[in-house]
Amino acid sequence: MSGNEEQLMRILRPKSVAVVGAADSNVGAQVIHSLQSLDYRGQIYPVHRREKMVLGLKAYPSLAGIGVPVDLAVITVSPTATVEVVRECGKLGIPGAVCIAGGYRELGDQGERLEAELVDSAREYGVQIIGPNTLGFINMDIRLNATFFPMPLEKGVISMITQSGGVGYSFLMESIDEKVGVANWIGVGNRSTLDFTDYLGFLAKDPGTHVISVFLEATEKAREFIQAAGEIAKKKPVVILKVGRSELARYSTLTHTGSMAGSYKMYSDVFRQYGLIEAASIAELACACKALSIAPIPRGPRLAVVTITSGPSIVAVDELSRRGARIEPFPEETLGQLKAVMNERPNVVLKNPLDTGGVGFEPEKFGEIVDLVLQASNVDILLVINCYHRNWRLPTSELIRTMRDHHKPMVACYVASRQDISKDVSALHEVGIPVYSTLDRAIFGISALINYSLAQGGTAGCRGTGAGQDET
Amino acid sequence: MSGNEEQLMRILRPKSVAVVGAADSNVGAQVIHSLQSLDYRGQIYPVHRREKMVLGLKAYPSLAGIGVPVDLAVITVSPTATVEVVRECGKLGIPGAVCIAGGYRELGDQGERLEAELVDSAREYGVQIIGPNTLGFINMDIRLNATFFPMPLEKGVISMITQSGGVGYSFLMESIDEKVGVANWIGVGNRSTLDFTDYLGFLAKDPGTHVISVFLEATEKAREFIQAAGEIAKKKPVVILKVGRSELARYSTLTHTGSMAGSYKMYSDVFRQYGLIEAASIAELACACKALSIAPIPRGPRLAVVTITSGPSIVAVDELSRRGARIEPFPEETLGQLKAVMNERPNVVLKNPLDTGGVGFEPEKFGEIVDLVLQASNVDILLVINCYHRNWRLPTSELIRTMRDHHKPMVACYVASRQDISKDVSALHEVGIPVYSTLDRAIFGISALINYSLAQGGTAGCRGTGAGQDET
Repeated sequence: MSGNEEQLMRILRPKSVAVVGAADSNVGAQVIHSLQSLDYRGQIYPVHRREKMVLGLKAYPSLAGIGVPVDLAVITVSPTATVEVVRECGKLGIPGAVCIAGGYRELGDQGERLEAELVDSAREYGVQIIGPNTLGFINMDIRLNATFFPMPLEKGVISMITQSGGVGYSFLMESIDEKVGVANWIGVGNRSTLDFTDYLGFLAKDPGTHVISVFLEATEKAREFIQAAGEIAKKKPVVILKVGRSELARYSTLTHTGSMAGSYKMYSDVFRQYGLIEAASIAELACACKALSIAPIPRGPRLAVVTITSGPSIVAVDELSRRGARIEPFPEETLGQLKAVMNERPNVVLKNPLDTGGVGFEPEKFGEIVDLVLQASNVDILLVINCYHRNWRLPTSELIRTMRDHHKPMVACYVASRQDISKDVSALHEVGIPVYSTLDRAIFGISALINYSLAQGGTAGCRGTGAGQDET
Repeated sequence: MSGNEEQLMRILRPKSVAVVGAADSNVGAQVIHSLQSLDYRGQIYPVHRREKMVLGLKAYPSLAGIGVPVDLAVITVSPTATVEVVRECGKLGIPGAVCIAGGYRELGDQGERLEAELVDSAREYGVQIIGPNTLGFINMDIRLNATFFPMPLEKGVISMITQSGGVGYSFLMESIDEKVGVANWIGVGNRSTLDFTDYLGFLAKDPGTHVISVFLEATEKAREFIQAAGEIAKKKPVVILKVGRSELARYSTLTHTGSMAGSYKMYSDVFRQYGLIEAASIAELACACKALSIAPIPRGPRLAVVTITSGPSIVAVDELSRRGARIEPFPEETLGQLKAVMNERPNVVLKNPLDTGGVGFEPEKFGEIVDLVLQASNVDILLVINCYHRNWRLPTSELIRTMRDHHKPMVACYVASRQDISKDVSALHEVGIPVYSTLDRAIFGISALINYSLAQGGTAGCRGTGAGQDET
């Protein structure tokens, strides 16, 4: 491990955190709230010129006043004052700082000069900066939320690197609603001393990170980024949301960063070439990561659908066949077994997608059918569609048993108002079945699993999110 | 009003309902559950050969045994027995029947013969059939849920016609989660004696229906359907989700109905030509209808964005500019006013999208900014992006005041875990501001409003959902 890597590890897993500028209900106080609300076990040192106590903690007039070594300073003062605090960090041997304030190069010439000053101070003393202009970062392994948004997060295996605090926050809210946890979350801000590749390197080696989510606006080092991400993607799925589909966004990016690393189409092609999964929206990013973090990766793109209602399965197959899924008829053997299970139900047509009709309202029967289809020799992944009914039972225990028996990838769409299926979702997630309450989200999940499989050398087939494909 | 229309009106607003085949917890009993759980005020007559009481109601051995006129029979017996019951309806002068069972022409030759028999019986006696092979229908004006899925629905102004019970049910679940109500909901099933145009005619005249949602698999009478829908769209928005983007779905449709009414691209072009709004997913269908049912229609496609966080606004503008929105710089007058409001905040760049940065965390200030931008002469519609924070207040009361003052269309994206903003959502919906907790959903809403405006002759600009547009 290089010295830089060791330093980053210490910053992202700090044993103690100083929060500079914390008072009343300001941004700094919210950082302390965030740390406290997740039960961070390390030391928290509020630093404020006048305050003696902040949120029940003894406050210090300066970083120097703390008197013991500190691993991380979260700096919430003005952009100009931040430069001075970073210099102080350096003098005291504090290895890293989160610089929350904006007001640097994102504002143009004047801001650029201030940012240069900030970076010079940091480099002079060897301080690494997360940001500036960032929401902060989160490390759930040590229950550390070093942002100024307290959130009821759960620990999971998805980590995010985001070039926008707002998009990253949306991703976290999606994760809460989708009932998946988070490992690390890093708002890169203006990327002053640390860049995408540094954070990617950390997550690549982090055993708690199984899936990496990236929101990318623009980078001057596109090649470096893609090569690093592509290398990681051989072992852990990397899902990317990239802005810039429209002429307008391309223009904004150009005027914003002065860098113009090729068209969206070019990015899209290169992502695919390097085995990176592309998402077209924040919802897709969250749902793709969810599936990749919960389900086993399918061996190939051959999809079966078992449903109690035909329409949604047609919509699913319509979309998923454009996203790389292959829909094959069931083999003779499976057809024979299905016939045996449904001998008294001549109303069912034994095709893929398989609409069980009324049979599916009996969870035991539905479970038997799912079990048979999942075992079919030409099925790599199964989409199960069922509907919540106030007086009937969902086939949750049946799906759990089938998953335990065969450990083959399944995604469930339980059409419902979200709160009604909360317990079923938790139980199914636990055994490796991602569940979504809407079809479009289940489609995002299946699509990501299939495309990661294809990127890893699964049976050949067309790939991609379907966006921009011909629709003649 | 024609005799047919009067008859349909009576069926869809029945004063009394007989449920044939209701016992224990079967499908028929669930229909009675559904009727009771919404507090339907009409008479409910369970009909069953053996049962004396069903769910606390006196049961009758046959329709004839009821002894008083009945407006509607919901038939939940087998497909073959259903034919006989329809004949009985005819003899007793019951004008309409919901035929829930499947097992007709969707199964091929044999089923087709049975369906012909069903239709012949119905026509002989002048009975109109909803279905067969349907989930049923809902009319919230009389609090009637004549499906076998009890649901906690609210009354609203969106009506749906759906060719799939499952897709239609998903739409209802989305509506519950999005906190919008429903007026009418009709599962057309196999469309035996009643077709799309009959239902469209009913909804066109229904004063309680302001927006029409359609899920379409295939129809042999595409021209008739589109012309009828196009005529209605001049007065009420019609939003359509049509399957068939993929080769596979086109093939399925062909083999399923034997009809092949042109390619998806052709449908898509014709929808646009007739002023129909197209949705690409169930989520988009629900979110588009929500916006159209809550917000005033904008005068044109000129969009402004006010946000506390830049990233999501870039994602939004990227997507919305591909969907017909025009993003113009603010006029001099507005810039002057904004400068005055933010004189102490030199860190904000006054462009559209407008990122208020830290200023936006003060709801009063954020409200002032929103108020100014909404009044700008070249703004037709405003997207407001804010984030839920556990210890800070959202600018809900400010948005409400602004809406009351100017009555210009606004859509709010409150990034949050859905349950955290429940009260804000209700309050904002009440004054005409649709709120979404995720950005992709807010984009669906804005896109629908702009495209309906353009279809109605708003300032020219490119249109459509963006699907299939070039991404060079």
